[in-house]
Amino acid sequence: MTQKFQPPKGTRDFMPEDMARREYIFNTIKAVFEKFGFRPLETPAFESWELLGAKGGGGEAIRDEVYVFRDKGGREMGLRFDLTVPTARVVASNPQLAWPFKRYQIGRVWRYDNPQAGRWREFWQADADVFGSGSMAAEAECIAAFAACLKELGFSDFEVRLNNRKVLSGMTEVSGISAAKSPAVFRALDKLEKQGEAVVRKELKEAGVTAKQADKLMTMIKLNGRPKEVLEKATKLLGGNAAARQGLKELEEICELSKSYGTAESIVINLGMVRGLDYYTGPIYEIVAKSKSSVGSIAGGGRYDRLVELYGGKPTPATGGSLGIERIYEIMLAEGMLKDIPPTKTRVFVAAAGESDPRLAKAVLETAQKLRKEGIPAETDLMGRKLKQNLDYANRLGITYVIVIGGKELASGRLTLKDMRSGEQKSMGIPQVMKAVSLQ
Amino acid sequence: MTQKFQPPKGTRDFMPEDMARREYIFNTIKAVFEKFGFRPLETPAFESWELLGAKGGGGEAIRDEVYVFRDKGGREMGLRFDLTVPTARVVASNPQLAWPFKRYQIGRVWRYDNPQAGRWREFWQADADVFGSGSMAAEAECIAAFAACLKELGFSDFEVRLNNRKVLSGMTEVSGISAAKSPAVFRALDKLEKQGEAVVRKELKEAGVTAKQADKLMTMIKLNGRPKEVLEKATKLLGGNAAARQGLKELEEICELSKSYGTAESIVINLGMVRGLDYYTGPIYEIVAKSKSSVGSIAGGGRYDRLVELYGGKPTPATGGSLGIERIYEIMLAEGMLKDIPPTKTRVFVAAAGESDPRLAKAVLETAQKLRKEGIPAETDLMGRKLKQNLDYANRLGITYVIVIGGKELASGRLTLKDMRSGEQKSMGIPQVMKAVSLQ
Repeated sequence: MTQKFQPPKGTRDFMPEDMARREYIFNTIKAVFEKFGFRPLETPAFESWELLGAKGGGGEAIRDEVYVFRDKGGREMGLRFDLTVPTARVVASNPQLAWPFKRYQIGRVWRYDNPQAGRWREFWQADADVFGSGSMAAEAECIAAFAACLKELGFSDFEVRLNNRKVLSGMTEVSGISAAKSPAVFRALDKLEKQGEAVVRKELKEAGVTAKQADKLMTMIKLNGRPKEVLEKATKLLGGNAAARQGLKELEEICELSKSYGTAESIVINLGMVRGLDYYTGPIYEIVAKSKSSVGSIAGGGRYDRLVELYGGKPTPATGGSLGIERIYEIMLAEGMLKDIPPTKTRVFVAAAGESDPRLAKAVLETAQKLRKEGIPAETDLMGRKLKQNLDYANRLGITYVIVIGGKELASGRLTLKDMRSGEQKSMGIPQVMKAVSLQ
Repeated sequence: MTQKFQPPKGTRDFMPEDMARREYIFNTIKAVFEKFGFRPLETPAFESWELLGAKGGGGEAIRDEVYVFRDKGGREMGLRFDLTVPTARVVASNPQLAWPFKRYQIGRVWRYDNPQAGRWREFWQADADVFGSGSMAAEAECIAAFAACLKELGFSDFEVRLNNRKVLSGMTEVSGISAAKSPAVFRALDKLEKQGEAVVRKELKEAGVTAKQADKLMTMIKLNGRPKEVLEKATKLLGGNAAARQGLKELEEICELSKSYGTAESIVINLGMVRGLDYYTGPIYEIVAKSKSSVGSIAGGGRYDRLVELYGGKPTPATGGSLGIERIYEIMLAEGMLKDIPPTKTRVFVAAAGESDPRLAKAVLETAQKLRKEGIPAETDLMGRKLKQNLDYANRLGITYVIVIGGKELASGRLTLKDMRSGEQKSMGIPQVMKAVSLQ
C-alpha cells in the first residue's frame, strides 16, 4: 500500500464511521447547550497574532504552541488556540449586544504540541460562556449545562471539582507569600495531582516561597471534599482574609444554586485545584469522569472578568468553560458508549435483480427517489454491479434494508424487501414497504 | 466605540442570528446529501504544501492564493483551498474503502483573495463526490443531489449547465488546435460569459490560436440550449471526432438518467462552459439560480478521473462538486428566503415577578429545568433583573413565551404564561403550560 501523502502530524482524517460517532457527540452537546439558552457563534480559524498574544489572554503562555504565519500583506496571524479569546474579542467590539450574551461554539483549535496519547495538534472544543453577568447564577448554569451534556452522552459518574482564584489568592496572602508570586505559585500547585508534592515544593522554592510559607499553603490546599465540610474548615483557616472570604461566599452560592439544577450532588470543593490559565479571576472548576479509562478532566472553566477589557471592550464580567471533545470521544470509544451509533444514515439500498434492463434501472431510481421524498435515505447501484455485490456493499456499510426489483416485481407492481439484520425477505406492495422502512 | 481588534481582513464573525440562518442552510444540505447516501468526512484544516501544490491538483494555479506557513518542525503547510484535494488524498491512501465511496464534507476553506463583494478569504463549501464509479449514474446522482439541496432551500428556478471536457477537447482538435494548447484555450473560453468574445479572441491569439481556428471554435462553443437540439447539432459538427463523440454520448446518458431523478427539465447543454480547474477529465456542470440578485453559479462540479492517482492512489474514477455556501447565503438573505428562521432556539424565558425571594428563585430554576427535561429550551435571569427588563430581553432575543412566577403563582401552584407575539397572558396549571409551549 503506497501512502504518498498523509494528514499532517498531529492531525487526523475522520472517516464516515468516525464522523457518525463524533456527530452524535456534537449534536448531543449542541442540543443541551441550546436547551440552556446558549446561542451559536462562529469566529475565524485565525486571528491577528497581536490578539492571540495579548498579555493576559493566555497566548503569551503558549507562544511556542501557536501556529503563527504571515498573510501575503505581511500581517502576523495565528491559528486560534482556544475559543475563548476570539469570543472575548467579539464581545469587546460589539457593545450593542443584548446582555447576558450566552454563546456556545463547537469547533477546532490548533496547538503545536508534541503528539502523544490524547494530544493532537488539531482538536475540537465545545465552549459555553456567559458574558455580562457577575452573578454566581451564571457559574451554576454553566456547570449545570456541562453536567447535562455529560449525562446525556451517557456519563453516569463524574465529579465537579470547584475552587476559586480568590480563595487561592487569600491562601497565598495568609501564607505570607506576596501577590507578585501568585502566578508562579499557581503554576506550581497545578502540578500537585499529576506530579506529587515533592515537585510542587521544589517549584515553590524556586519561586521564592520559604519552607514555612509552603507548609502553611500545603495544609490549606489539601482541603478537599464535600462542600459543607470544606467551606467550614476553610472559613476557620481563612475567614480573616477578605479575598478568601468573598471567594468562599461565591462557592457557597454556586453550591446552593446547584441544588435547583440537580448538580449539587456531583460537586466537591478542592482548594488545591488551580487550572492552568492566568486569566481566571473567580470560581474555577473541572469535571472528572470516574471511568475505567479515565484520563483526567473532561471539562473545565471559570470566571475571567478582565479578559473583555483586555481586548478593548468595556469591563464585562464573564464566565464559562469547555468540554474536551477529544477526551470525551476517546473515553466513549474505549468504554463502548458509542457502539450503537449506526455507521451510515442510509436506510435502504434499492437494487435491480437479473439482467441489465433500462426499465429495471428506471424503476430502481424512481423507487429510491420516492423513498428520499419521504425523508428516507436511500442508495442505488452506481457501479453497474450484480445483486450479490450490491448486497455485499449494503451489508458492509450497515444499511438496514435492501429493496430488490426484478422482472417479477416489475410485472406485479410489488417489491421484495430484505431485512439485512435477519436476512428475512418478503414481497410487499409499495405502501407496505414505505411503512416497513420508515424511520418512525 | 473602541474596536481594538477586528476579525482578520476577508474573514467574518457570525453572530447568533447569522448562525441560526447559516445552520438552517447547512442542516438542510446535510440532510439532502444523507438522503442520497453520501456520508460525512472530515479532514484537517491544513495539509502539506507538497500535497496542495501537486501539479494538476489545482494548487499550482492558485499558489498565490494559498495561506502557506511552516510548522515548528520546518515543514511547509498550507490551509486547504478546497475540499476535493484533501478528500482525494484520503481516497488515495485508503484502498480498503468500500466502493463507491460517496462522501460529503461541509466546511471552511481559505484563499488569499482580494476581498470584494461575495469574495471572502475564509468561506464555506459543501461538497458531495462519488469515488470509484466511472458510470454517468454517478454524475446524474450528484447533479440530482445538488438540485435537491437548492429546491429544499427554496430555489424554485435554476438551470443546470452541462458540458464535457472531452467535447471541448474534440472541438479544439476539430478546429486544428494542438492538444498542448488546450489548458490555455480553456482558460480563455472560461471568460466568454463574463468578459465577452473580444477578450476571449485576444487570449486565444496570445495562446497561438489562428483567427481561422478561433472562428471555427467560436461557432461550436456557442451551441447552447435544450439537450436534444444541442446534441443533434453537435453530433453533426463533431461526430467525426472520437473524443467528442464519447463526450456527447456521456452527456446524453446523464440527460436520460436525469429523467428518473426529476432533474432533466433543469438541464441545458452549454458547449462554451469550461470551469476553471485543470483537473477535470469528463462531464462538467454549473448550476445557476435565476433570481433577481443572481451572482453567477451557486454550484458546480465535474469528473476528475486522474486526481486520486496523482496523490499516489490506484487509478480511481471520481466525480462530484460543490455548493457555494456564501453565494447561496447571500442570495437567500437578499431575497428574504431566510426571514422566517427564528433567531434563537430558546422557547421560554422563566421570570420571577416582584421581590427578590429565595423561594421564587428556586421555583424559577426548577421550572426551567422541568422544561429542559421535556426538551424545551428555556432561560432564566442571570442578571438579577426585574420582570420588566427580563421581558425586554426575551422580546429582543425573539423568545416566544415568558412564564411569570410571583407570590400568587407560588401560593396557587399555577403559572402565568405570556405569549410574546400577541402579548396575551393566561394563568395555567403546569401540565397546561408544558403543553402550550411544547414544540410539537
